[in-house]
Amino acid sequence: MQIGIVGLGRMGGGIAKRLMEHGHKTVVYDQAEKAVADIVSAGAKGSSSLQDMVSKLDKPRAVWVMLPAGKITEDTIETLSGLLEQGDTIIDGGNTFYKDDMRRAKTLEPKGIHYVDVGTSGGVWGLERGFCMMIGGPKQQVDRLDPIFEALAPGVGTITRTTGRDGEPTRPEKGYIHAGPAGAGHFVKMVHNGIEYGIMAAYAEGFDVLKTKNGDHLPEDQRFELNMPDIAEVWRRGSVISSWLLDLAADALYENHDLTEYTGKVADSGEGQWTIDAAMEEAVPAYVLSAALFARYRSRSDNTFGDKLLSAMRHGFGGHVEMPQ
Amino acid sequence: MQIGIVGLGRMGGGIAKRLMEHGHKTVVYDQAEKAVADIVSAGAKGSSSLQDMVSKLDKPRAVWVMLPAGKITEDTIETLSGLLEQGDTIIDGGNTFYKDDMRRAKTLEPKGIHYVDVGTSGGVWGLERGFCMMIGGPKQQVDRLDPIFEALAPGVGTITRTTGRDGEPTRPEKGYIHAGPAGAGHFVKMVHNGIEYGIMAAYAEGFDVLKTKNGDHLPEDQRFELNMPDIAEVWRRGSVISSWLLDLAADALYENHDLTEYTGKVADSGEGQWTIDAAMEEAVPAYVLSAALFARYRSRSDNTFGDKLLSAMRHGFGGHVEMPQ
Amino acid sequence: MQIGIVGLGRMGGGIAKRLMEHGHKTVVYDQAEKAVADIVSAGAKGSSSLQDMVSKLDKPRAVWVMLPAGKITEDTIETLSGLLEQGDTIIDGGNTFYKDDMRRAKTLEPKGIHYVDVGTSGGVWGLERGFCMMIGGPKQQVDRLDPIFEALAPGVGTITRTTGRDGEPTRPEKGYIHAGPAGAGHFVKMVHNGIEYGIMAAYAEGFDVLKTKNGDHLPEDQRFELNMPDIAEVWRRGSVISSWLLDLAADALYENHDLTEYTGKVADSGEGQWTIDAAMEEAVPAYVLSAALFARYRSRSDNTFGDKLLSAMRHGFGGHVEMPQ
Amino acid sequence: MQIGIVGLGRMGGGIAKRLMEHGHKTVVYDQAEKAVADIVSAGAKGSSSLQDMVSKLDKPRAVWVMLPAGKITEDTIETLSGLLEQGDTIIDGGNTFYKDDMRRAKTLEPKGIHYVDVGTSGGVWGLERGFCMMIGGPKQQVDRLDPIFEALAPGVGTITRTTGRDGEPTRPEKGYIHAGPAGAGHFVKMVHNGIEYGIMAAYAEGFDVLKTKNGDHLPEDQRFELNMPDIAEVWRRGSVISSWLLDLAADALYENHDLTEYTGKVADSGEGQWTIDAAMEEAVPAYVLSAALFARYRSRSDNTFGDKLLSAMRHGFGGHVEMPQ
Repeated sequence: MQIGIVGLGRMGGGIAKRLMEHGHKTVVYDQAEKAVADIVSAGAKGSSSLQDMVSKLDKPRAVWVMLPAGKITEDTIETLSGLLEQGDTIIDGGNTFYKDDMRRAKTLEPKGIHYVDVGTSGGVWGLERGFCMMIGGPKQQVDRLDPIFEALAPGVGTITRTTGRDGEPTRPEKGYIHAGPAGAGHFVKMVHNGIEYGIMAAYAEGFDVLKTKNGDHLPEDQRFELNMPDIAEVWRRGSVISSWLLDLAADALYENHDLTEYTGKVADSGEGQWTIDAAMEEAVPAYVLSAALFARYRSRSDNTFGDKLLSAMRHGFGGHVEMPQ
Repeated sequence: MQIGIVGLGRMGGGIAKRLMEHGHKTVVYDQAEKAVADIVSAGAKGSSSLQDMVSKLDKPRAVWVMLPAGKITEDTIETLSGLLEQGDTIIDGGNTFYKDDMRRAKTLEPKGIHYVDVGTSGGVWGLERGFCMMIGGPKQQVDRLDPIFEALAPGVGTITRTTGRDGEPTRPEKGYIHAGPAGAGHFVKMVHNGIEYGIMAAYAEGFDVLKTKNGDHLPEDQRFELNMPDIAEVWRRGSVISSWLLDLAADALYENHDLTEYTGKVADSGEGQWTIDAAMEEAVPAYVLSAALFARYRSRSDNTFGDKLLSAMRHGFGGHVEMPQ
Repeated sequence: MQIGIVGLGRMGGGIAKRLMEHGHKTVVYDQAEKAVADIVSAGAKGSSSLQDMVSKLDKPRAVWVMLPAGKITEDTIETLSGLLEQGDTIIDGGNTFYKDDMRRAKTLEPKGIHYVDVGTSGGVWGLERGFCMMIGGPKQQVDRLDPIFEALAPGVGTITRTTGRDGEPTRPEKGYIHAGPAGAGHFVKMVHNGIEYGIMAAYAEGFDVLKTKNGDHLPEDQRFELNMPDIAEVWRRGSVISSWLLDLAADALYENHDLTEYTGKVADSGEGQWTIDAAMEEAVPAYVLSAALFARYRSRSDNTFGDKLLSAMRHGFGGHVEMPQ
Repeated sequence: MQIGIVGLGRMGGGIAKRLMEHGHKTVVYDQAEKAVADIVSAGAKGSSSLQDMVSKLDKPRAVWVMLPAGKITEDTIETLSGLLEQGDTIIDGGNTFYKDDMRRAKTLEPKGIHYVDVGTSGGVWGLERGFCMMIGGPKQQVDRLDPIFEALAPGVGTITRTTGRDGEPTRPEKGYIHAGPAGAGHFVKMVHNGIEYGIMAAYAEGFDVLKTKNGDHLPEDQRFELNMPDIAEVWRRGSVISSWLLDLAADALYENHDLTEYTGKVADSGEGQWTIDAAMEEAVPAYVLSAALFARYRSRSDNTFGDKLLSAMRHGFGGHVEMPQ
């Protein structure tokens, strides 16, 4: 089928190409003319503006917006809502906050424009492996767009089938789900990222315990000389904690045992924070997911004001002098 | 080669069988005669006591002790140390605390008896998939026993090779490592389990956020109807958080969406606690790994005395009445 | 001076009485006629509606709204904004979210109506001890209302003076501060409550460690028979952790050593959650404050879905059976 | 009564002086002759060795050891155990691990030498305010030494009496308790310090949220200009979170609003770690107390290996570049 794609960065461009490889037609737009030209040379129909793109799409139209979450996505969807007509569908494939999806769906409803949100996981590997997709929106539209989603998804692959599942593979077994109404897709993707932070932190803390065990600040008879890349490697095979994130850790540790090329100042996108917000709204304890998020904050600052206050109080009651630098 | 095996439970029995399938010879012993008979019928040479087993082994002997960590392992090794001779090797394959390994190796050294500790991961799946092994002990003995370890390990398998690794696969690529001197094997295994707790808790908290989002305690317009098994399933394919533990979660959730057959009182073996001990000895922050451990403690108790004290203090300053039951 | 008071519950009624004891005049209103009659009998001028109350106040008027945060406060301020005139001031003394204060101040500004937010601490003890107040709003209005705040505040009292402070006691030494523009008062109060949760959780966990040390699930030679009320009592005298919350704990523990009258299901008002929100907006790690909040959530649920998933995964890889009930 | 004191540092010297002020007699010893001379000039009988000190004490003797926990205390008690006789008592007033107390008491028992452990809180302020003491050991000896403990304790003071307590003040109301057998004193003191870490961390995180709210990394309309010392000051009066630690924070913040004289590298003595150990032995969740301890570890390191691994994994799946420095 045919689809419009707005935003031809690494993700948007990859989606366009993967769709065309699977026989779909794309009409593409990006503020950067060069980005458009690149995808056109791969077989897409280019356009010079949102208006131009919309005019080149067959009704009922479907436009996939693949832009950084926030103002630019908001503005683009606002503009599109003025250009599209009843029966058309806007798909937001960015990292949008699920409550923004819910709001937008409600705003577009009176105009008869459908809204579908798609959370995607897979990072830069998605182009090659396929995108794992969590989709929210009205069932009818998600079903209509199914060929698009199926083409983008990783497919069944070689993964062992879950015990008890049989018959024709369902969507989740092909790597995408219709999670619920507008917002549900990004909600599931948000929690996915929250979990991702937690898993990454578990590995990080564990490797910290291993690495520090080699350290010369410990008494000599309590030290080991553990080999980080080999430990990551062995755990990839048959251990309970094998995972794709561990595969990536093994790659990085093999390349540089000490990871000296990294400063360890770790960014966070919004999803980790939103997951904690959701947990609090639901009164669900999220000790691990929040600690994982806070460790990223902490990694980005030098000693905090709070730490100084601890030192000051210790000085107050005990006359304690601080640790030597 | 030939090896003695003490303890023929699920793990020990599995090890004996796997070794024999790979052409090794075993002399086996267990307090339960029936367990011995079972393995003998699979080709092992049986024995009626530790002394009998030792007498049937060729020198230099190697005895693999596969018993529950603690007193029974300690006693068995004590007895073996009186039966074995210079040049023989004791292998502890249980979940022993690494400092106990270090102590034992030191105790056995004057007698010329070698001590090798092997941490194994893979759970009940190890027999089928092979055991991921982390080994501590003197290099010479670990090298001598290499055929045993190679037979037990999962082997290279079909896993994508780590970027940069080439040539003949090394031990870690075959699923086992020599981590360092006595204790190093169980130390690495201990941290492995600490990480395991953290990863499991990350999934648990995340699925809790998802599941509770369906709950009727939320305002209706803030609820979804998310499908737990389908979400686990879709994340298995191409998502950043795919892992073996997620595969297991997908199995369990598919079997029973609500997991009603579980009470959620979660046990912990010693390794989680020991990992926190090690972190504290090294002054490594372990927010996530400790929170994962504490969640298991908490799961096993009803309301704590601490919770009651919170209620009491709230009553004290605010006249607050407790939540309705 | 004269002030209108809306909401004559325990807090509002206490404020009215304390103000009158200090020579101020009050015009009071509450939906419950009986509540009005009670305060009128203590010297206040009663009123039968917001409109009636406003009509009885001298210009520039000041109306203190002391209602539960949320819809009723919002509606009351909305109504008052239609009744009041340029130069008048609305004071919100409830537990309002500081961003609502900021929004309201902005909304009222074009009408020339001033908005002052007052966070109060002291619980039910405030009437007797005076209210610790954190105030946000325009300096001119806060200064105009100073006699009101001074009357409500605890005053200098017998507390040892902070090192270095001398001369006439300033507002903070009398128990109230002008923290900043609208919202700043409730922001400081919000963080106050966040800290309160953390301190309470520290005592709760500590007493849990003490109490459990008496427990018969421990080996006999590792048990003590610690006396909870005596420990709380001794810490009140000269220890580093003496505090008002400890005083309250000592009261409760003396009354009932085992706190058997409490179930330990601990409620939370919004401030704990908002503090974590603020921390996340500022990227400040809040491990302790969030854990304290989550412990309250956890206290209110039986075993979580997450706990069950942990059990299910353990069963999956290890064939582990759950803990006995 | 008469008592021997070993170790005349700030704490030991203070104890000697306070005892003499209350009419007790002391025989003192310290490796530093000058320290001995100072206390002698305040009225003590000096001694030149442990042996000399023991010879100058009346039977049954009591010797208070006030040395840094660890080897020097261990050695001193070892030596004393050879010099003292049946019926004598050794008091360890240092920060000893309670299991060491339990072991020592068992070792000394066959010789008829009694062992009493005293945990003290109050820091450098104890000399002036009196020492809050938690005492373990045999009831008979603790009773015999009661005049010593009463002299050292803060006494009833001006603190409001706990509701329900009446009649003659008991020991806890005078600032000391007999907590149980040997080790119980230091156990209670250990948990006291664990709680102390938690409370301090709660204030630290809260003030961090306040201080960061002033920061110019926030959008201008979301910033306040909060005054740290005034906030600490106002909370001292009538707020729920007033405490002695807050008093100390107020002192420090008034002296230097930005605490610029502190680096914020925060040391920890053993008690915080031991409290977590005890919690784990008892399976008590200690989220807050552990997080408080870990924050101190974290304050002492620059970016951790774990942080770098997080960056490396993010790079692996997303091609993410690290945060700018």
